[in-house]
Amino acid sequence: MSDASHLDRMQRKKDVVDERISRATEERGVLILLKGNGKGKSSSAFGTMARSLGHGQQCAVIQFIKGRRETGEYLFFRDHPKLDWHIMGHGFTWETQNRERDIEAAEAAWAVAKGLLENPAYHLIVLDEMSYMFKYGYLDPEPVVEALKRRPAHQNVIITGRTMATPLQEIADTISVVQDERHAFRGGVKAQAGIEY
Amino acid sequence: MSDASHLDRMQRKKDVVDERISRATEERGVLILLKGNGKGKSSSAFGTMARSLGHGQQCAVIQFIKGRRETGEYLFFRDHPKLDWHIMGHGFTWETQNRERDIEAAEAAWAVAKGLLENPAYHLIVLDEMSYMFKYGYLDPEPVVEALKRRPAHQNVIITGRTMATPLQEIADTISVVQDERHAFRGGVKAQAGIEY
Repeated sequence: MSDASHLDRMQRKKDVVDERISRATEERGVLILLKGNGKGKSSSAFGTMARSLGHGQQCAVIQFIKGRRETGEYLFFRDHPKLDWHIMGHGFTWETQNRERDIEAAEAAWAVAKGLLENPAYHLIVLDEMSYMFKYGYLDPEPVVEALKRRPAHQNVIITGRTMATPLQEIADTISVVQDERHAFRGGVKAQAGIEY
Repeated sequence: MSDASHLDRMQRKKDVVDERISRATEERGVLILLKGNGKGKSSSAFGTMARSLGHGQQCAVIQFIKGRRETGEYLFFRDHPKLDWHIMGHGFTWETQNRERDIEAAEAAWAVAKGLLENPAYHLIVLDEMSYMFKYGYLDPEPVVEALKRRPAHQNVIITGRTMATPLQEIADTISVVQDERHAFRGGVKAQAGIEY
């Protein structure tokens, strides 16, 4: 490509970007959903949380499903003074195989989440793997939607999980679908510290 | 759903998961590509890096494009003792509008990346927004593929960017496509600290 045509292409790109920026003027918190079967949804939420903490914002994580190991993200973030980290689930639902205990854990996690959604001190709340609670019928999405609608105007919320409840999708500001095009696990590579947990 | 059918469904799920785990036995570093036009690719890479740092692993980031602001993720991570953070690009390519300067910056960034890919001390290397270097013809993918193939066996690498060069996709272990289903920006919400930067 010549320098002139490159310059022309980049000028057009700049015009499009600048025009879009000039139209987006509303300042408020957003609801972000990270769904799909690909790798990277929870890690994307934790990366955004690092970004938020970097600006000195108060954050909280509620993990609705606890894995079988102490995770690297928990070890990394747990002592941060501007962050609460709640591990509320007690295992993968196909590991515990106890529906009643799972429902109790989901309700306890939601009680904590609801309190945070009423608290203007929190700038970002991550509801990690929450979508499974709706999929398995452990939680009703309607009270969650109501609490999200009533939350402080500046508060950002990220919800992760493979499949999202429709009422949440209706009120979301941003929805990213993480698709699994290839996964090392299917290629025979063992789950490893620092990548999977 | 009855408790009995729930138990049966979860037992089948557990069998499938357990069988997959038993087949994945190879222990080695992986190449992960995060592509697509949706929000959350770089933040996913930084979340995985938090996970890796949580396990005490040495990490490095090379940012091939520098935004116009000091980002929250940089403010958050920059002082971590187990991490090198290199900001090598000098701006969005449609902002600088100087092809020769962009190529120089890309080559300087690649020289640093190449050194890290030869260094077994590094467990995870994030090549953030590198894909644009191939898209605009600033870097040739072949030497990058060769360096990735020769890297230390335990080293994990994550490359982010909207469109990925085909030779990189051919050697990747994991590819996640982040699709943009909805974005607050198009709904008129201004980019904000803690979410976009």
